[in-house]
Amino acid sequence: MIVLKLGGSVLTDKSKPETLDEATLARAADAIAGFEERVVLVHGGGSFGHHHASEHGISSETGSHDIEGALAVHDAMVRLNDALLDAFGERDVPALPVQPLSAAARDESADLSLATDAVGTMLDEGFLPVVQADVIAHAGTGVTVVSGDELTVTLAEQLGADRVGMCSAVPGVFDTEGEVIDRIESFEEVRAALGESDAIDVTGGMTGKIRALLELDAPAWVFGLDRIDGFLDGESPGTQVG
Amino acid sequence: MIVLKLGGSVLTDKSKPETLDEATLARAADAIAGFEERVVLVHGGGSFGHHHASEHGISSETGSHDIEGALAVHDAMVRLNDALLDAFGERDVPALPVQPLSAAARDESADLSLATDAVGTMLDEGFLPVVQADVIAHAGTGVTVVSGDELTVTLAEQLGADRVGMCSAVPGVFDTEGEVIDRIESFEEVRAALGESDAIDVTGGMTGKIRALLELDAPAWVFGLDRIDGFLDGESPGTQVG
Repeated sequence: MIVLKLGGSVLTDKSKPETLDEATLARAADAIAGFEERVVLVHGGGSFGHHHASEHGISSETGSHDIEGALAVHDAMVRLNDALLDAFGERDVPALPVQPLSAAARDESADLSLATDAVGTMLDEGFLPVVQADVIAHAGTGVTVVSGDELTVTLAEQLGADRVGMCSAVPGVFDTEGEVIDRIESFEEVRAALGESDAIDVTGGMTGKIRALLELDAPAWVFGLDRIDGFLDGESPGTQVG
Repeated sequence: MIVLKLGGSVLTDKSKPETLDEATLARAADAIAGFEERVVLVHGGGSFGHHHASEHGISSETGSHDIEGALAVHDAMVRLNDALLDAFGERDVPALPVQPLSAAARDESADLSLATDAVGTMLDEGFLPVVQADVIAHAGTGVTVVSGDELTVTLAEQLGADRVGMCSAVPGVFDTEGEVIDRIESFEEVRAALGESDAIDVTGGMTGKIRALLELDAPAWVFGLDRIDGFLDGESPGTQVG
């Protein structure tokens, strides 16, 4: 079983609020529709979630009790999720939506609890679960963001994924010369390179991604959209982590 | 803490597909908005869910792998849930949606697993969780319906509710003379009366409701919308069960 994350920056034009990148969405949906095995699909927020989260001051760390902010982020993510479901519907893929707001929470230590019975049973029944990044209730602080990266790692752990894919806007993890690193087996190997590429993404960026992927039992790959078919076919595109 | 179910027949005109009863919805939202303590709100399907479920042959017992049917029921329930969220938004109640499709599943024995960390944490953070009846993945049979009644009983059990309310289209449970029974403490007491009132509701009707409520630790009441304020104020409206 594969857990595949489509980065928000792959699916959307991050420079304009709530703007789909129809071409890349179609490209990703085609690849997944042509794949026969079990996949859990996770997607990030891109210009849907990030825009509202930043406007309302909500992040993975900073919570809010403002219901308007919470619903603005959640509803925008539902719209992006709906766009994916529509794309799969057009391709006769039986995709079902999964909203972490209904299934997950953080305790006072910010530890995530995520129920996976729904996703696991969807998989067993031949459905494609499409899990959105979201806001979730967080003890003591209202709601915080749960990122696609965090959901991917947690689902991969709890459901025992065989392979994990992070399809992103970059072709892999860059070294200090700007070349894609083939494989990362420990964080120390790439500390210097990662320190520099981390300013943009409010939900953790590459450093957080690599750290989390290194903790997984399953091998993971970070790759660009043009390598999604290769990843699904069992190749080793972009950067292997772990 | 109270778990309160609003029956689908209270909120909608069951004779017309996807038709809200705006007046009763406003009445219920006013009552809940004026209540200070912790409430988990559950709602049934009424003319939103039942219509599509019956058209696609999906019930609590009969599953389906047809993605169009599954999404037709789910999406209709989301529209009803949205109408409730809008009503609470207008009344400055911080209500959040909860979709069992994302949080629940049935195993091969049809036993329900429902994650309640999200709902519990929402409550603790001062939000009103608004939980919809829904379709959920069901091992071996695709998706089946999870009714508002079943969700109410399960949430009440798992979250340790103090009181449970079933606000329905009838003022309580009728005896064979058509009078509302004050209190039911065992199923045997009412077997004869219940046998007759059970033909209409595809998700269990009054018999299933009473059986399930009798198994709860918390006392429950079945009452009509005109008694919702009384129930919230701690009165004993309609029929007490248990």
